[in-house]
Amino acid sequence: MSDQRWHAGELVDFAEALLRAALFDAEKATITARLLVEADLLGHTTHGLQLLAPYLAAAEAGTLRTTGEPTVVADRPAALTWDGDRLPGVWLTDKAMGEAMARAEELGTAIVAIRRSHHIACLAAFLTRATDAGLMAVITSSDPAVASVAPYGGRRPLYTPNPIAIGIPTDADPILIDISASITTNGLSGRLAAEDKRLPHPWLLDADGNPTDDPRVITADPPGSILPVGGLDHGHKGYGLGLMIEALTQGLGGYGRADAPTEWGASVTVQVIDPACFGGTDAFIRQTGWLADACRDNPPRPGVERVRLPGENGLQKKRTALQDGLGLYPGIMPKLEEMAQKHGIEPPLPIQR
Amino acid sequence: MSDQRWHAGELVDFAEALLRAALFDAEKATITARLLVEADLLGHTTHGLQLLAPYLAAAEAGTLRTTGEPTVVADRPAALTWDGDRLPGVWLTDKAMGEAMARAEELGTAIVAIRRSHHIACLAAFLTRATDAGLMAVITSSDPAVASVAPYGGRRPLYTPNPIAIGIPTDADPILIDISASITTNGLSGRLAAEDKRLPHPWLLDADGNPTDDPRVITADPPGSILPVGGLDHGHKGYGLGLMIEALTQGLGGYGRADAPTEWGASVTVQVIDPACFGGTDAFIRQTGWLADACRDNPPRPGVERVRLPGENGLQKKRTALQDGLGLYPGIMPKLEEMAQKHGIEPPLPIQR
Repeated sequence: MSDQRWHAGELVDFAEALLRAALFDAEKATITARLLVEADLLGHTTHGLQLLAPYLAAAEAGTLRTTGEPTVVADRPAALTWDGDRLPGVWLTDKAMGEAMARAEELGTAIVAIRRSHHIACLAAFLTRATDAGLMAVITSSDPAVASVAPYGGRRPLYTPNPIAIGIPTDADPILIDISASITTNGLSGRLAAEDKRLPHPWLLDADGNPTDDPRVITADPPGSILPVGGLDHGHKGYGLGLMIEALTQGLGGYGRADAPTEWGASVTVQVIDPACFGGTDAFIRQTGWLADACRDNPPRPGVERVRLPGENGLQKKRTALQDGLGLYPGIMPKLEEMAQKHGIEPPLPIQR
Repeated sequence: MSDQRWHAGELVDFAEALLRAALFDAEKATITARLLVEADLLGHTTHGLQLLAPYLAAAEAGTLRTTGEPTVVADRPAALTWDGDRLPGVWLTDKAMGEAMARAEELGTAIVAIRRSHHIACLAAFLTRATDAGLMAVITSSDPAVASVAPYGGRRPLYTPNPIAIGIPTDADPILIDISASITTNGLSGRLAAEDKRLPHPWLLDADGNPTDDPRVITADPPGSILPVGGLDHGHKGYGLGLMIEALTQGLGGYGRADAPTEWGASVTVQVIDPACFGGTDAFIRQTGWLADACRDNPPRPGVERVRLPGENGLQKKRTALQDGLGLYPGIMPKLEEMAQKHGIEPPLPIQR
């Protein structure tokens, strides 16, 4: 992190102005700006404003469509399928969340599948809209144009890290889970490779299938691969999860690797579940609240300060950043300032301390 | 495996007769017998006929109810909640699968949540009913009366291994995933402890939180715990999955650890998704078939013969066992023969070779 901090609201306004300058519709610019900054607030520094410059470049290159609506491929009561037609993925996913929430409150659960979305950034950022309404949400995503993870036992990259995010309401802060089916991600590998650093453990295979901590193997020729969750020891579990997410996203969307797409994008599936339609909201919250307390009260193992819940660190970072200002990962702001200058947009000033 | 083999059909008849003798309703006995043998056919030897003796003992002790129907707690179009009232879990789960399938074909997806089921055995055994009909199924389960996994960073057992099984239709054999959110299971740990063996790797923590491969720590006083998927290296991922499954099962069922139950049982959630209601069955199968082929064609890493799909070994074992007879894990048959004698039931003879 750099020492400089900004008011989060001013960063949202700045991002929105840049997106408007790139001809994003008003709503698409507002939602995208807000949720990119939300990702930074939660500490997901590879999936927040770091993505704004590539999004703006994609809009300029015409590979991201800044205006229009998704096409409805199929519409059944608990199952809605959109062709995203390379519209902004952050906006599409948030819109899908709204649709799935409304249907889940009626039916108990509903799924929206989106094919051919543009990139969707940070999955965790979408969750609190559902959990604030007492709903459970599950978001899965894959990119059929990118391959970096090999199937367990193999050594040729075949699919993406395939994130899954789960929001669970409790009687206090929600549990916000945001994990991938591989040990590490393209984002972290790429950042460490650019900084000439190593991964903390041998989470990758080189092209011959030997374990390594060198992130440069991912972009080597021929490329290495990222190990599935569980690694060499029990990677069949991460492999299973990765396949589930391929099926939920590209399978339900009906578009994916079989079509050999070449443009950066996403297949996204958003499911919402309303506990009120099952055993009841109070009964749900009673169980998840008990579980959250029991996790926090668990005695830590040696070297661990205390047991945390998924999302706890992120929500704490967000509270601090809203109060003291938001720091950005080095390199993000200079890049955006450069783009702002072209459009005559004034970047926000860091907070004076 | 012992050298003896039996005709699978004769083992089903034998199990059914034993269940009938324990006063199981006809349908409950038939379904339970068939799906326990199905687990053995698929190679899940800790979750097949090994469970029959404990089920019969539970019926005799009155902790498993052998007759009657589940109580409907809530019924919304895509969300059905049952109180299983300790009815046979294998029968309840198969019945839930049927309900979820019918509703998913109408609505796109549907979820059945069951609280207070008795034990449900092998999750993978339920999947092909859905995949044979072109449907995707996800089954999750937890046992609120048992604690063997500690939250990541902790050392006090809090929740169960929490299995998730996923059935994905393709253009050939289905992909049948059956994994848990912990590295190993209670079943395997218990079996190895009884045989005075060690786990292949340090997949457990002792009560002080130090890694160990000694399965006896699970039943020690105070007890150790099973590590979540990802282990000490990246166990926050398995921890997240485990919490998701607690919420899907006990949260939606509205009954669980907060109620401090003491009897062996299960909270179960069955979801079915109909690809025909999304991008279409053909489009789904095209993606999953392509993916399955690409996994099998992936070049293996050193020491691996070839890359397999989840479920491939199990389906192969089943084909062989249906042709050559089914072997059982040592100790299972003697125990059942003993129980059969009490009821004057004739055990099947091993196949003559």
